[in-house]
Parts: sequence; structure tokens; C-alpha cells
Amino acid sequence: MNRLKHKILDEVKEDLEGIETALRENLSPHFDLVREIASHILFSGGKRLRPLLTVLCARLCGYAGNYDKTFSIIFEYLHAATLLHDDLIDDARLRRGKPAAHSVWDNSTAVLTGDFLLARALSIGTETGSLKIIRIVSEITENMSQGEIRQLMRKGNLNLSESEYMDIIRCKTAVLIQGACRVGSLIADAGEKEESALSDYGFNLGIAFQMADDLLDYTSDSSVLGKEVGADLKEGKLTLPVICSLTTANSKERSDMEKIIKSKAFSVEEFETLVKMLRTCGGLRYTEQLAEKYVERAKDALSVFDPSKTKEILLNIADYALSREA
Amino acid sequence: MNRLKHKILDEVKEDLEGIETALRENLSPHFDLVREIASHILFSGGKRLRPLLTVLCARLCGYAGNYDKTFSIIFEYLHAATLLHDDLIDDARLRRGKPAAHSVWDNSTAVLTGDFLLARALSIGTETGSLKIIRIVSEITENMSQGEIRQLMRKGNLNLSESEYMDIIRCKTAVLIQGACRVGSLIADAGEKEESALSDYGFNLGIAFQMADDLLDYTSDSSVLGKEVGADLKEGKLTLPVICSLTTANSKERSDMEKIIKSKAFSVEEFETLVKMLRTCGGLRYTEQLAEKYVERAKDALSVFDPSKTKEILLNIADYALSREA
Repeated sequence: MNRLKHKILDEVKEDLEGIETALRENLSPHFDLVREIASHILFSGGKRLRPLLTVLCARLCGYAGNYDKTFSIIFEYLHAATLLHDDLIDDARLRRGKPAAHSVWDNSTAVLTGDFLLARALSIGTETGSLKIIRIVSEITENMSQGEIRQLMRKGNLNLSESEYMDIIRCKTAVLIQGACRVGSLIADAGEKEESALSDYGFNLGIAFQMADDLLDYTSDSSVLGKEVGADLKEGKLTLPVICSLTTANSKERSDMEKIIKSKAFSVEEFETLVKMLRTCGGLRYTEQLAEKYVERAKDALSVFDPSKTKEILLNIADYALSREA
Repeated sequence: MNRLKHKILDEVKEDLEGIETALRENLSPHFDLVREIASHILFSGGKRLRPLLTVLCARLCGYAGNYDKTFSIIFEYLHAATLLHDDLIDDARLRRGKPAAHSVWDNSTAVLTGDFLLARALSIGTETGSLKIIRIVSEITENMSQGEIRQLMRKGNLNLSESEYMDIIRCKTAVLIQGACRVGSLIADAGEKEESALSDYGFNLGIAFQMADDLLDYTSDSSVLGKEVGADLKEGKLTLPVICSLTTANSKERSDMEKIIKSKAFSVEEFETLVKMLRTCGGLRYTEQLAEKYVERAKDALSVFDPSKTKEILLNIADYALSREA
């Protein structure tokens, strides 16, 4: 485990425990099958990044009440619901190193459990009694489904542009992390300045996280990643490392890459060849640098807050976005 | 077209036009594919029963504003979202006489469009600015997904009890129609007495509608029904006509029925034999009588309102629940 991750986990240990408790308590009144399936996705080693951000952002804005963890799980539910529907769409075999829910149960169960978690997230949202929070949660949901539909429409499209890619990751990842941070400030009844700063922090962090995720698909191995390497490509999803490399490649390189990309049943060797080309064509480096820029923006957004332990954790989380291995 | 239906449609013509307009306007700012797919399910001859009930219930409570139709489409969206996920789960070929969305596009698109419509419904809900309405909408969503999961769990179970059946149709049908009516009263700022009366009306109407629907699966033919006859049974769904008949049948009858039910690829002749047995064992009659009871309860619930044209339409809709042919 890398050092930064260790440090962060050490400092948020109690918060994470509180979040686990809130998740378990919220699910427990529900009948068996729903709980079982929801638990499969909810308790299989997720990072709890989103609820953790809500809790930390609320604290950064001076919140000292008891509802931060209760409300924070909205964002884990939304995340889990998306994963359930996503894995089914991508026909993914592994999720977090375990078989994806739709291959343990069936597609129908995965769809319905996703629906249930979505509905639950919105119910918890209404419990906040804040119209603003509810509006944010429903906008996130709408954005995420639109992002997924756009991604699906573009599947297998070798001409996907960088701006189309940015639009997809904004919808499918950044708005959720942004919402988790923004709602943290709202739970704390923070002012507009703080709300806007944490909204910026979350948005930029979300973009950086997704870019790092997309990089890992080319640079990690499957035992660490908990899912198949090259999975994005096999699903026909073009991400920034490839998009950028296809643009800068000469025509010979481009046609070599396209051949591998189009043959979705590429061998390990072919995949390694492709990764080498992503390196020589600069796609990996470009993505890393852009992600770094977003991390810097996320950190800059926190400048409105005085130094504190919580602020430092949030800064560390931003740095961790790029240094993580899975 | 039967007379009652004709009469109702004549009286609500303008309302239905207003609802269509609201649906089209709400979808139009959305990008092409979402609109296209959502339109496939939204504009394929649905009855618009749910939004119509919202509009009528608001009017019955004296509402004279301009937002009834805008808000009423929440319930058509929720309904359409469920149909999209449902058809996929049941692998239905036809819906309202047209190919089901997931066979025109693919499963993924159907899942994501369902998610989008669900999210849209909740966004419109937040636009009401009423926490109570939002809470109702999110509770409906939660209930519906639970009902679907329960139905899925019980698929193919020949021992499904009447009370389990009632629980399933309550969740998957009655709570939505109940919510549509109740929200109508809330849009009109009606008192508790009116809210509770319309809530009862909607609940009982919803149960009656679902029972009538379940009867039609055995008594209608597919050109009228717009979906395959015997579809419920082919999907392993036991409904009241069968549940009741299996209970009252002697052991020879029961084993004959079970044989047909278990062989999901039953012929038209076998299906007709089964329908005859549902008649002799009393399952069809029992379901009709119970549905009639719920229609009476729905109509009784309206007794708190003075006579009016709107009240009469609502009474007619309740009667129509049982007389409809598709």
C-alpha cells in the first residue's frame, strides 16, 4: 500500500467506520434479497471515497452534528447503483476483484437492485429536508444517466474527441464527486463561498480521479486492479490515453493501433504492444499531465479555507488521486 | 371501443392534449437518442391514466392553476421507466402492440433510458418545491423497485399465496396510482380529508386495475391486448386467477394445470384448456368479484366530495377499470 494512502486511511479511520455503520443500519430494515445483493456491491471493498468527502467537507465547514454520515451514504448508494447498471451494460466479469453482481444473480436482479439503491438514495436525500440538497441529488442522477447513454452511443467510435470524452467523464464521474462535496458544505449550512469552493474541489478531483482510473486500465495489472486489464477497450470505450495517441500518431502507428483496438479479442501481447504505443505517442503522458492539472485546480479551490487537519486530508486525497495503484 | 371509454375520453380530451404537450415539452431539450428512446415508450399509445388522475384530482380539490399538467407527467415518467426495466426483465417482445424498447435498441439502452426517466421524474418532483410531494415520489420509486424484486423472487413459484400476490400488486401498481391521485390533492393545497380520500381512491383503483390487467392476460386476444396472451404465465408470473384456481382445484385438476404452467412453451390449445379450468375452478370469477369490490371502495372514497363533473369522470374511470378490453 502506498504511503499517502496509508496516511489518509489512518486519519479517516473513525469516519470510515461511521460510514460503514450508517450503510449497514440503513440497509438492515430491508428484506433479505435486496440486502444481500445490495451488500454484494456495497461491501466488497469500495473506497467509500464519496461519503468520506461529504463527511470531510461538512467538517471543514465547521459541522459538528450527527447527520453527516447518515446523509453521506446517499453518494455511496448512487455510486453503487451506477456500478450495478454499468457492469451489466459492459458485461463486466469482475468488479473490485469479485464477480460482478449480474453474473452472480442475473441481469434482472442487478437492474432492480440498482433501481432500489437509486430510490433509497433519493429517500435519504428527502430526509435532509433541504430542497437544495434534493435538487442536487436528482440533478446528479439525471446527469449520470445521460453520461452513460452518451458513452454507450459512442462505443466503438474511433473518432471520439477529447471534448466528447471530457463531457462523458464530467457526467458519469465528476458531478457525483462534486455533489458529495457540495452537499457536505450544505449539511454544515456553509456560506456561498465555501459551497462554491468545495463544489470546485469536488469537480476537479472527480475529473482527475476518472483520468487516473482510465490510465490504470493501461498501466496496472488485473490482480491489483480488481478487474480485467484492457477492459475499457474490450468494451469499446475509448479513453483519453488512446484518444490522444490516435491524434498524435503517424498514419502507420494509427493503423496499427486501430487494428488492435478493433479486434476486441486482442491477446496479452497485442495489448502490451498497444500500451507501448500509447507511451511513445504520448497519450499516457498527456493524460497524466492533464490529471495533474485537475489535481492542482482541486487543491487551489481549497485556498479559501484556513489550514486545518481536515483541509490537509482533503489535499492529500487530491494527491492520492494520481498516485493510487487501483 | 366500449361506451364508457368513449364517454371518458370525450370528457378529458383537452386534459389529455395538455398532458401530451407537457410530455413533449419536457423531453424536447434533451439530446436526440434519449428523446428518441423515451419517445418510443412514452408515445406508443399509453393511456396516460396516471397523469390524467393527477390533473382530475387536483381539479376536484379546486385547483385552477397552470402547473397540474407539468407535475402530472412525473407519474407517466415513473410508469414508463418501470415498463422499460420490466420488459427487459420479462424479455417481453411486445409492449402496447409495438416491439419492446430493448428489442429495438439493446438492453443497455433500455436500462439507461429507464434510469434517465426515473431521474427526470424526480427532478420534476423537486420543481414542485414541496417536500411532501418529493417524499411521496421517492417512496413510490422505492416501493416499486421492491415490488418488482419480490415478483422476480417469486417467479415460477407455484405456491404463491394470495397475500403475497396482493403485496406485489400493491407495490408495483397501486402505490403509483395512489401517489398520482394524492399528489393531485397536494398540488391543490387540499385539506387532509381530501388528501386521504383521494389517496384511498387511487390505492383501490390501482389494485382493481392490476387485477383487471391480470384477468385480461387470460381473457383477451393479443391483437386487442397489444402484447402476447399468456405472457404472464410464460414469464413464470402467477396472478390471482391462477393462484385462486390452484387452491380450489381437486388434485387431478391441480396437476393438469401445473403441467401446463410449468411447460412455459405451452401451445395455444393447452393455454385454452388452462383458461377453461380457470373458469371451472372459479379463479376468473373470484378475481373479477374481488376487483369489483376494490372498484366499489375506490368510488366510496369519493363520497367526501360534492357531486361535480370531475367527480363523475373519476367514478367512471373506476368503473372502466373493469370493463376495459385492453
